[in-house]
Amino acid sequence: MGEHGSDSTVFVGKKPTMSYVMACLTLFQNGAVDITLKARGRAISKAVDAAQILTKKFVPDVTVKSIELGTELVKSIDSGTTSDVSSMEIHLSK
Amino acid sequence: MGEHGSDSTVFVGKKPTMSYVMACLTLFQNGAVDITLKARGRAISKAVDAAQILTKKFVPDVTVKSIELGTELVKSIDSGTTSDVSSMEIHLSK
Repeated sequence: MGEHGSDSTVFVGKKPTMSYVMACLTLFQNGAVDITLKARGRAISKAVDAAQILTKKFVPDVTVKSIELGTELVKSIDSGTTSDVSSMEIHLSK
Repeated sequence: MGEHGSDSTVFVGKKPTMSYVMACLTLFQNGAVDITLKARGRAISKAVDAAQILTKKFVPDVTVKSIELGTELVKSIDSGTTSDVSSMEIHLSK
């Protein structure tokens, strides 16, 4: 992922939870100060898991600074219909 | 559920999302000012859905006041083993 400034975003999707934990760990080790975990729909639970594992087990000096909820309009590729999907951003900070 | 003061809690579990939306609506209509949606594990996504549907579609005067993440130790009835499960509280306020 190359060089990072102080702000980075990790999109949480279908990979195992630990993939996102490791992605954040790598970002923090490379100098990131603020990381945002973004997730939609069912991946929201996974983003919370990743945030908890990170802050409770791996980097206790990282805390959950703020959490934002949102709703995104998602268009299905198959049916072409649109539907509302919940989204979440977890802002982690060193 | 009877009478309610200004503070109420709705536990989000395996029922359809709209069950929890309706539970909150009823509480607000009965005079509740603050409602906490609590969820663990995969139900976290559902709690976010319920909060978004409530605040965006049904009661625009209700807002997400704060969100807390946590980790709970859950003991399996079958195996007797314990494991960490992420939890979330969404505080809604009129």
